[in-house]
Amino acid sequence: MTAEPHDAVAPIAWLLGTWTGSGQGDYPTIQDFAYLETVTFGQVGKPFLTYAQRTTHPTEGHPMHAETGYLRSVGDGRVELVVALPTGHAELAEGVVDGQRLLLRSTVVAQTATAKEVTAIERDIEVSGDVLRYELRMAAVGQPLVHHLTAELHRQP
Amino acid sequence: MTAEPHDAVAPIAWLLGTWTGSGQGDYPTIQDFAYLETVTFGQVGKPFLTYAQRTTHPTEGHPMHAETGYLRSVGDGRVELVVALPTGHAELAEGVVDGQRLLLRSTVVAQTATAKEVTAIERDIEVSGDVLRYELRMAAVGQPLVHHLTAELHRQP
Repeated sequence: MTAEPHDAVAPIAWLLGTWTGSGQGDYPTIQDFAYLETVTFGQVGKPFLTYAQRTTHPTEGHPMHAETGYLRSVGDGRVELVVALPTGHAELAEGVVDGQRLLLRSTVVAQTATAKEVTAIERDIEVSGDVLRYELRMAAVGQPLVHHLTAELHRQP
Repeated sequence: MTAEPHDAVAPIAWLLGTWTGSGQGDYPTIQDFAYLETVTFGQVGKPFLTYAQRTTHPTEGHPMHAETGYLRSVGDGRVELVVALPTGHAELAEGVVDGQRLLLRSTVVAQTATAKEVTAIERDIEVSGDVLRYELRMAAVGQPLVHHLTAELHRQP
């Protein structure tokens, strides 16, 4: 990606880069789990960032979760997230940028016929220096919106 | 991706690879346009293919469209597509595999607050040897479901 960043992505340019680290997941209906994670925010000179995420098993190394999409900068410090998940879900969210903190709240979680029920997702993302921390809360399979994931990632040089 | 393909992706394994070529677009509300395109279907040993697409301007080379998501194989020759678009849309579609032909019909087109109205997308994809051809029809901005895109791509060695 050699293009200069679009002016519109300046408020979220602190997300750019490839971030790696580890996270922990829990949910009322499943066993706790840990994961290694790689997140990449890229840009192509347009008013959005590309977003790609994948996790692997911390000891066995096999792929676990993945998601991919775009973070649109739509003005006045507001963003829109569009993410596709291989679980059969698409997440659309709106967010507010507050310094190097981004709070995303789903407006729609659409799903295919065979996907498990997911009704809401909230993501809080914060960057301090070269450390990115996030928390994800989810309402799914009859459960209320509760904590699901926390991770701490480091920006690759 | 060194993992062996999951058994479930066998019916759509003919899509695997990176495909490049050119396409043409038209729509009642815009001027006709041409594009160069790269499409990649990958796999990570799970019951879906990863999907990434991007187009560039045929003479000036700048990025035009992009989309990214997953093609889930859900049994009985049926697939589910989940795609995120930087235009603020998420497309969920169901499809039937017929040999090396795949007909996808959107079940949901979700959109963010600032996105243009898109209500339906149909994709017909066909592979013959190392040539992939597709047609995409779209209902958007008050127009009925009509032809939008056609392309012919070649599988990279």
